[in-house]
Order: sequence, then C-alpha cells, then structure tokens
Amino acid sequence: MITVTSVAIVGLGLIGGSLLRRLGPSHDVRGYDADPATRAAAAEAGFRVAPTVEDAVAGAGLVLLAVPLPAFEELVPAVAKSAGPGTLVSDVASVKVAPREMMRVHAAGLRYVGGHPMAGSERSGFAAGDAHLFDGAPWLLCLDADTHLADWLELARLVAGLGCRVVPATAAEHDTAVARISHLPHVLAAALAGAATDDLSRKLAAGSFRDGTRVAGSRPELTAAMCDGNRDALADALDAVLARLAEARDALGRGDSLLPLFAEGYAARQRWVGSGMGGAEVILDAAAPTLREDLLRLGRSGGHLDEIGERRLHGWRPAG
Amino acid sequence: MITVTSVAIVGLGLIGGSLLRRLGPSHDVRGYDADPATRAAAAEAGFRVAPTVEDAVAGAGLVLLAVPLPAFEELVPAVAKSAGPGTLVSDVASVKVAPREMMRVHAAGLRYVGGHPMAGSERSGFAAGDAHLFDGAPWLLCLDADTHLADWLELARLVAGLGCRVVPATAAEHDTAVARISHLPHVLAAALAGAATDDLSRKLAAGSFRDGTRVAGSRPELTAAMCDGNRDALADALDAVLARLAEARDALGRGDSLLPLFAEGYAARQRWVGSGMGGAEVILDAAAPTLREDLLRLGRSGGHLDEIGERRLHGWRPAG
Repeated sequence: MITVTSVAIVGLGLIGGSLLRRLGPSHDVRGYDADPATRAAAAEAGFRVAPTVEDAVAGAGLVLLAVPLPAFEELVPAVAKSAGPGTLVSDVASVKVAPREMMRVHAAGLRYVGGHPMAGSERSGFAAGDAHLFDGAPWLLCLDADTHLADWLELARLVAGLGCRVVPATAAEHDTAVARISHLPHVLAAALAGAATDDLSRKLAAGSFRDGTRVAGSRPELTAAMCDGNRDALADALDAVLARLAEARDALGRGDSLLPLFAEGYAARQRWVGSGMGGAEVILDAAAPTLREDLLRLGRSGGHLDEIGERRLHGWRPAG
Repeated sequence: MITVTSVAIVGLGLIGGSLLRRLGPSHDVRGYDADPATRAAAAEAGFRVAPTVEDAVAGAGLVLLAVPLPAFEELVPAVAKSAGPGTLVSDVASVKVAPREMMRVHAAGLRYVGGHPMAGSERSGFAAGDAHLFDGAPWLLCLDADTHLADWLELARLVAGLGCRVVPATAAEHDTAVARISHLPHVLAAALAGAATDDLSRKLAAGSFRDGTRVAGSRPELTAAMCDGNRDALADALDAVLARLAEARDALGRGDSLLPLFAEGYAARQRWVGSGMGGAEVILDAAAPTLREDLLRLGRSGGHLDEIGERRLHGWRPAG
C-alpha cells in the first residue's frame, strides 16, 4: 500500500479551504484557487499556494478537485495536461456520475476515484473553512466497475485518517441517494421560502418555517449547479414527492384527514433518527477476492469503514 | 379597563402547562386537564388544579382553552354551561376560523377573542412546559367584525404583559398566514422524510435533510388535527407550492437550470431574515374611532404591539 503524502488541492472554498487546513499539518500540500484574492488569503494564513493550476498539480501524488461542477469542464483538461501519468485524482463534487464521465473523456490517463464528503454549511468561501468540518462525517468514495481497488483503498485510508466514515457506493447509487436527501431538500426549501408572500406571514413565521427554509439561504448559483448536475435522479426523487403531495392535496379536497401523510413521515423520520444507533462491527479481509462486492454491500446496507489496514478493513453496519 | 386576575386554563399540555407556570406567580390561576395523570403532575408541581372542567371554569374572569382543535367540540358546550354569562374566553389553537365558529354556535353568551401564541417545540405534554416558552414570541389575537374592542384590548394587555408581541389580524388572515408558514412546512417535511427509502440515503442524510424533516418528528395526530382544521387555506398554500414544484420538474425535463427557483427562494428567505430588522415605533391612540382599522393595518404590515396602556398603545412596524 502506498500512502499519499504530496497533495494538490484545487479550489479553496469551504471544502477545499477546510481540507487545506486539515491536511496542512500532516501532508505536503499545495493549494490553488482561480480567484487571486482567495489565493492571497490562503497564503496569508500560512499555506503553500501555487500561482497556477499547473504548478499546483505538477509532481503531486494526489490531486483533489474541490471546485463546483461547472468548473470541471475547464479544469479537468488542464489537470490532465500537467499531472504526471497515472496521478491519482479525486474530487468532492456533490454529484458523481457527471465528474466521472468528464474524467473518462478528458483525463483517461489519470487514476480517478470520485468522492463526496457529506459535510458543509450554508456558509461558503475560504474564510468559512474549518479543519474540523469533516470530523465524523460520512465521506462517500465511488467504487465503480472501472475503479481500481488499490486506488480506492489508498483514498479510503486518507479519508479514514481524517476521522471520516468511508462509505463505498457506485456513482449512480450516490446520485440517487443525494437527490433524495440533499438536492430534494434544497428544492422544497426554495419552494417553501417563496410561499411567505405577505408581511403577516413573514411576521408569524417561526421554527417550522425557519428550519424548512434554512438551506434556501445557500448561494443559489451553487445550489443550482449541484442540482442541474444531477438532473435525472433529482427528477425521479421530485416525482415521488409530487405524487405524495398530490395525494395530500386530494385528501384535503375530499375532506379526508392528512393523518396518513404525517404518520408515514413520522415513521420515516424516526427510522432515520434511529438508523445511526446500534449496529454491528464489520471486519473485511483486504485480500478477499469478493472485496469489491463486500464493500458495495456494506455501503448499500448503510455501513461504513473507519480503519483501512493493510490486511483488514474495520467498519460498522447498522442493525436491521 | 378591567384587568383579568382570575384565570382558568383548560388543557395542560405544552402550551397550557407553560401558561400555568408563567401566569401562576402573578394571577389567580386554576388548571384542568382531561387526563388524570396530567392533573396529578400539575398538582404535584404546586399548582391549583380543578377536578372537573366545570370547577375550573366556574367564577373565572378569563377562560383559556389550551386543547387541540378536535377537543373543542366537547369542551366548548361544557364551558358555556359552567362559565358565568359574559365570561371572557380565549384559546391558543393553531387555527382560528374553526374555533370562532364553534364559539358562535355553542357559546354565544360568552365573550370570545381567539388567540395563537407562535411558540412551541416538537415536544409535548405538561412535563415539556416552560414558563419562558412565550418570551418575545408573536401572539396573534383575532380582531373580527364581531369582536368587542374592549375584550380585545383586555386580552392584548395580558399577552403583552407576558412579554409577547401582540399581532392583530382577522381569523381568516391568520389561517391563510399559518397555512403558508406553519402547516405547509409540516406537509413538506413529512413528504421529504418519506423520500429516504433506502439505507444508503439514510446514511448520507445530514444537515439539509435533518432541518427539512425536523417537524416530521412532531406527534402525527396533533399535526393532522392542526392541518385538517385549516383545510381550505392549506389547500391554497399547497396549490401554490405544487405549481412551483411542477415548474421545477418541467425545467429538469427540458434541460433548463433550476437557478430561477433557487434565486427566488434565496431572495424570499433573505427578505424574511431581514424582516425583523429596522422598522419604526408605532403609537396608537386607544380612543381613536379608527382604532379597529389601525390595528388591522398594523397586523397586515407585519407590526405588533408590546405595551397596552389606558390611552395609548405602543408597538412597532417593520421598514419597507
């Protein structure tokens, strides 16, 4: 097993800036951001900052792309040109099918393992970065048919070393899940925020409105880029919710109670709250010929890894 | 101006129990709850508890109904039988058209001013009560065509004395507003909670899902009773959101960006966040012949009263 020590982080916003702070003390890290002011802020904070993406990437053992999806189109070919052949590349974009396709088309000579740390805040930019942003967070790493297991394990070891829970899944599985639990909440929050159209409503709005609209306070261009990049999975998730809401609307019109909707929602919320409790330890044999399937099965069951050893991988799987 | 001193609180759940704690030290308060265990808990906490609703209500200057809407049907006739003629009655139900109609039909001999404190939590029951639950909260008091201004002012003085912001509005205005900012968030939260149908989704769900589904953790019978009691206004609010979501679904299908939805949601959320800042002091003349209209105009503009004097009412109106 090779352990990555030299890392280039391209994009120093909330996620990239937090990674720079987190990896800085233990790794040989260079940062780069397209925005000169962000580069200056990172340099002033004491980090090594490259003047160009080429300088950042050249010679790095691992390149972490921490830019929003729309920036990939320009960035990926630039990285492909400057990175040494076979350099390991990962990213933190909140969708995974689209970046994988871009890497396949524009950077076929590099090794790629897509990633997604499930951490964030409605704040953004380098100044909002925090070395502890990832503490205990799930960090999904894509294990697709063409992913090299050795590359995946290398990334998994780095991510587990950050104190994250490594979740294996295919890019498509990831995109379906985040459509349901991240992109859909953003769509509903925006629609709900727009419902407070008068001063009396705004005056009376309190807890349920505040929580229901919180993520509508995120920068709309970033949210749109994220959701536009996961169009098909989000459409499916939205269809399911629209069907449920149409049923509720019909019940209101018929004079029926909304209790079935709320009972179902309550049960689902309780199940989610309870899903992190209990469960069992998991040990996987790193040399097992079934490792790839073992990992994907673990991810599908809601499990994760927290220690990547040479011979055994240690993790957790929820009960039931 | 008469100041109410003798108060009966019927229903000692979260709201009634909090009111009992808040009013106990300054007023002559008796509590009652249909549940014997709740009565015992309130008595044990040192409060005066009546054994029947008749005992609680008899001789009280003000009767506060703090029960869920479905309990009104049985409770209102009982109160009408036991309360002295012309007793002032208020309530804290989260809808206002339906209780008003029940009072009109079953308790025409009593004076009624509907109310709704905009405070709560997902917890419920007497044990969850808190004397500080209402600190600084808006407390809507209904001012309808048949409400006596003197009764309204009496209630307003009591509520302002609790440290609340008194918001005047008609029952219909109230129900339209809460459909948008309270009942709709509950419907969307339940629909969203039901979207996390697989273990991987539950695993990855974090901030946006947690906040978007928080109120789905409320007791479903209470939420259903609240929403079922505001059927028409909720149907209108839901129609508006369904139209916005259908538009988003079409945009996804056409390959268009969701940016317009998110830009609108962001602007609405920012406007709401900013709506509590700035603004101007308001002084109303308690003897003005236009007082009723002045109060309703203040409520519609997002304003409130915080001091109810004999001659002047002091309050606040937002900027813009």
